[in-house]
Amino acid sequence: MSVYLKDIPLDLAWKRFQDALETAGLWGILGIEEVVVDEGALGRVLAEPVWADFSSPHYHASAMDGFAVRADDTTGALPSSPRVLLTGDVARYVDTGDPLPEWANAVIPIEEVETLGARGEVVSGLRQAEAVRIRAAVTPWSHVRPMGEDIVATQLVLPAGQVLRPVDLGALIACGKSRVKVSRRARVAVLPTGTELVPAGTPAKPGEIIEYNSVVLAAQIEAWGGTPERFEITPDNFEQIRARVREAALRSDLVLLNAGSSAGAEDFSAGVIASLGEVLVHGVAVRPGHPVILGMLRVEGKDQPIPVVGVPGYPVSAALTGEIFIEPLLALWQGKAVKTPQQLDALLTRKVTSPAGDDEYMRVAVGRVGQRLLAAPLSRGAGIITSLIRADGIVVIPRGTQGLEAGAQVCVRLYRSPEEIEHTIFVIGSHDLTLDLVSQHLSVKNRRLVSVNVGSQGGLVALRRGETHLAGTHLLDPQTGEYNLSSIRQYLPGMPVRVIRWVGREQGLLVKPGNPKGIQSLVDLARADVRFVNRQRGAGTRVLLDYHLSKLGLNPDTISGYGLEEYTHLSVAAAVSSGRADTGLGIAAAAQALGLDFIPLYAEQYDLVFPRSYLEEPLLAPLFELAQDVHFRQAVAALPGYTVSEMGNVVADLG
Amino acid sequence: MSVYLKDIPLDLAWKRFQDALETAGLWGILGIEEVVVDEGALGRVLAEPVWADFSSPHYHASAMDGFAVRADDTTGALPSSPRVLLTGDVARYVDTGDPLPEWANAVIPIEEVETLGARGEVVSGLRQAEAVRIRAAVTPWSHVRPMGEDIVATQLVLPAGQVLRPVDLGALIACGKSRVKVSRRARVAVLPTGTELVPAGTPAKPGEIIEYNSVVLAAQIEAWGGTPERFEITPDNFEQIRARVREAALRSDLVLLNAGSSAGAEDFSAGVIASLGEVLVHGVAVRPGHPVILGMLRVEGKDQPIPVVGVPGYPVSAALTGEIFIEPLLALWQGKAVKTPQQLDALLTRKVTSPAGDDEYMRVAVGRVGQRLLAAPLSRGAGIITSLIRADGIVVIPRGTQGLEAGAQVCVRLYRSPEEIEHTIFVIGSHDLTLDLVSQHLSVKNRRLVSVNVGSQGGLVALRRGETHLAGTHLLDPQTGEYNLSSIRQYLPGMPVRVIRWVGREQGLLVKPGNPKGIQSLVDLARADVRFVNRQRGAGTRVLLDYHLSKLGLNPDTISGYGLEEYTHLSVAAAVSSGRADTGLGIAAAAQALGLDFIPLYAEQYDLVFPRSYLEEPLLAPLFELAQDVHFRQAVAALPGYTVSEMGNVVADLG
Repeated sequence: MSVYLKDIPLDLAWKRFQDALETAGLWGILGIEEVVVDEGALGRVLAEPVWADFSSPHYHASAMDGFAVRADDTTGALPSSPRVLLTGDVARYVDTGDPLPEWANAVIPIEEVETLGARGEVVSGLRQAEAVRIRAAVTPWSHVRPMGEDIVATQLVLPAGQVLRPVDLGALIACGKSRVKVSRRARVAVLPTGTELVPAGTPAKPGEIIEYNSVVLAAQIEAWGGTPERFEITPDNFEQIRARVREAALRSDLVLLNAGSSAGAEDFSAGVIASLGEVLVHGVAVRPGHPVILGMLRVEGKDQPIPVVGVPGYPVSAALTGEIFIEPLLALWQGKAVKTPQQLDALLTRKVTSPAGDDEYMRVAVGRVGQRLLAAPLSRGAGIITSLIRADGIVVIPRGTQGLEAGAQVCVRLYRSPEEIEHTIFVIGSHDLTLDLVSQHLSVKNRRLVSVNVGSQGGLVALRRGETHLAGTHLLDPQTGEYNLSSIRQYLPGMPVRVIRWVGREQGLLVKPGNPKGIQSLVDLARADVRFVNRQRGAGTRVLLDYHLSKLGLNPDTISGYGLEEYTHLSVAAAVSSGRADTGLGIAAAAQALGLDFIPLYAEQYDLVFPRSYLEEPLLAPLFELAQDVHFRQAVAALPGYTVSEMGNVVADLG
Repeated sequence: MSVYLKDIPLDLAWKRFQDALETAGLWGILGIEEVVVDEGALGRVLAEPVWADFSSPHYHASAMDGFAVRADDTTGALPSSPRVLLTGDVARYVDTGDPLPEWANAVIPIEEVETLGARGEVVSGLRQAEAVRIRAAVTPWSHVRPMGEDIVATQLVLPAGQVLRPVDLGALIACGKSRVKVSRRARVAVLPTGTELVPAGTPAKPGEIIEYNSVVLAAQIEAWGGTPERFEITPDNFEQIRARVREAALRSDLVLLNAGSSAGAEDFSAGVIASLGEVLVHGVAVRPGHPVILGMLRVEGKDQPIPVVGVPGYPVSAALTGEIFIEPLLALWQGKAVKTPQQLDALLTRKVTSPAGDDEYMRVAVGRVGQRLLAAPLSRGAGIITSLIRADGIVVIPRGTQGLEAGAQVCVRLYRSPEEIEHTIFVIGSHDLTLDLVSQHLSVKNRRLVSVNVGSQGGLVALRRGETHLAGTHLLDPQTGEYNLSSIRQYLPGMPVRVIRWVGREQGLLVKPGNPKGIQSLVDLARADVRFVNRQRGAGTRVLLDYHLSKLGLNPDTISGYGLEEYTHLSVAAAVSSGRADTGLGIAAAAQALGLDFIPLYAEQYDLVFPRSYLEEPLLAPLFELAQDVHFRQAVAALPGYTVSEMGNVVADLG
């Protein structure tokens, strides 16, 4: 089976798909069904406009508890010259909502009448009163809700395409509808394929991948108004996949065939689709996600062709394929407007390059620092699902653009509300495990912490550029042995910042359990049988390493793996745990987290730096409060090698 | 049963409720339950932070289809000096996602190798190759997804309080979670009470009200993450309501008792709550909705007190009580942040007065006209559910403010996205039935029509003030007998506007079927036995009436009901249909809509007026296209008394 994968532009891909759907009569509402308004109509989409059957109110109703009267009968009543109306056909008690008697055209509220007994004495019973005394005239139709005040029969109550909200259900019932016609939900089959896949909850061995794309796709379909059906995992076998696709096509409106959409040895999707119908598009020039297949299935037993999408295997590609192709299709089939995401203009924090031939969907974190809205690019790997979890939005870098400069204005399609964006605190700089705890504790205080790990120096640079609220830093001054202050003076000359102590922590060497290579100190890094994993340039741990290597007179060139850089303590620990390296310099907590042994070597100070102007702003207040919060301090102190006694103390005001 | 209703400020009401809930241990997450991630976890709220069990990838995985190698073995390979690596323990074929062999630390993609057979010849089989020839060196870890690249075991994946989205489910499964702890959904009982109520789908007689508040409240609860239970309608009977409330409290976390929350003769809610527990608040100074009751029920068989809310009966009051009290409570119980609505600043189109003692929740329509965002107040009646349907947002007029001037800047809490607001077309002026059809046809073209009926003259004034995109007008010039142009010259002197013909239509007298009063012409309006219903001052129909009355020498004072004003044709028809009046002047379609007879008198022209600058703007283009749309013209022509032959023609460019 030879399949040719050739990327075409997104608009052209859509056009081909649309043409095929139109030919099949599938470019519009999929079908209509009736639902009972008070059972499951919420969120459904009206297939037809709703014109009122009845008026509401459907009779003249009293708007108050009071006495129905003829306005004419009250003419001339004054405080000084009250008028008495006999109950019966001249004044009659009505509750709010009661119909007005035929002869009446106004209501006088109970507060404005005196009720009289048979001898003209004031009595308290409303219904038993023989007469009422009034001291003011009323105008016709006062305190009356006339028929049709809210809805007049035959008027348009809701247009077709309306996504029904709670109040809409009220209006539907009010105008006489107990059932309405809504678009039918599409049945969408989701077929995970791949011999390497194991279902959620299975302990996966190396080479096995826990399957979750089908869960994400099914949840997307549910969120977008379809009815998903997840199939079992099918191994990479042409005939088995073909049989499964055929089965799915027989009972679905759309088939999603996950993975195997590329052109590798075990990529059967295109071949299967070709054998059951037609491949319209194989490859779309979008990144991530380009090996998308669009096609139509023609299976015996089904009159209509069934559209099929070959969804790429990488999780970010799969989720974005959902957003790009499945969401608009489901909106079309329901007859609702495609929801255009909210957009914000922001400034890019760093330069990015992008393939000129593709539309790239770049995930970004967004926050406001000072007056500027900033978009910080996140990891762009198609395999990094956490980049989607963390993303506040997407920046599309269009085809024909090779990249964007730092500071460029970009349009962000938001995943979060602008409100959430405004409550975002950026911490850029050195990674520390307590930032996860901060994030967790702030999330209940209407603040969101976005931490970007670029190392201590990178954090100070970001602070100088106004791209972050805080920088986390643990930079040793090799001259003085003092932490942070000399670097801050160097990187932020004259800038009025405050430095607060965050945590003290212990740095040391992370080694496999039992320390099989017998590593004792930095000197062992130069051994031929020891592979090291380093932190990136500018990281405080890297500065610490270089300082001590230089003190020891050790040449970095003699250290195998010195050039292998990771960006966080946990990544260094993961490298040691997995055997990519024998040891790395890092903190005790990272070693404990992954069950490694730890050889303590140096105590260091991790501080937070921020412009003093933020002391006045409510945005950061919850973070400062956290430093004094007993529960938070206990949680931090429970991390191995961490001390919190100085947390929140002012180290210095500089600039 | 004497119950004292006294409004207290909203913040004070909340404080009392909060204190009682705290005492009862109900001020926080209601409970925790475990859900399976791939079954129904979507939209649930994490009750605890999720820290990764496993890394993802959980082994070093090839990122490409290619050959796993040791980077060292490739050193020195050049295009001019290729290197041959034997397959086996030096080069081994791997698919994307395959684990790297223990000895390897890089992958060379298949595109960059030549596969060789046993005798060194180039062969096509990847797995059968005996050796590969490479022409470039690779760096360590290139084309490898190292263990933990996406998620490192122990890191924070999602914070507590996260509302789970489709991609979140993927990350949960990726890090080893097949089940997660989420907050329990609250069970909320919704009890409609009222002898006058009949269920949806029942033909209601005068005095009967179709019950739909419970449907709206139940849908709100569902949308906000609770589990509603709607009870049957209970009549206004103290003991029956009491029994029902007790039954509801036994199996719910919250009881909503709808209507009867005021202090009228048949308002039993406060008494019932007092008899089963405690009334904390009776009356909150918010409008609409002030007779809210907040209380706690203490019933035998239940250890904990159960909060209860007495929800007012008017539909707008009921829905807003949901938004003000129930939504935040359900958010709190789920442990998620209270969703703050998106806000926009807009300019008020007209002056409003408001009771100084209350926070008033005023519904507004919002749109951008030119450079300005405008908020137009909608009907403020508590009984007008269509005011909530049409509302784009809420403006809260705070206590202590007696009103707002026209042009005041107000903050709108949006119900719609700013995107939708930007696609809103305002038509202010005379009401015409075709505007409903326009609205329906535009809704599929990503445009929203908001029509505000203030009469023809009011529309021209709004146009002059820049408060509307278009004005609909049918103003007869009594001097010339010509339509619209002289009024436009008068109201919009020098303003560059275009006038297009919209429809021709017939005006006449609407009378009861069979014309029981034998009305033939305007002369009959002066008869003592004929009650008239008029249109408001400035309406084109009113101008037409006055013109012909004057021609006939009839004095308006002789017409009974001349002072009774309605704002639309349909409202006039409703007034005749219900017997409030015997006749009114209006269009044939309104008569037909409500089954009235129509006595045709005058043909008139209904035009649309707009600044010519809008001809360039994409906003209005779909409306202009509609004038040429065959389906739309057919739909309009089907209305009685309507002609469309001139629809869209330019009548004049003025100014």
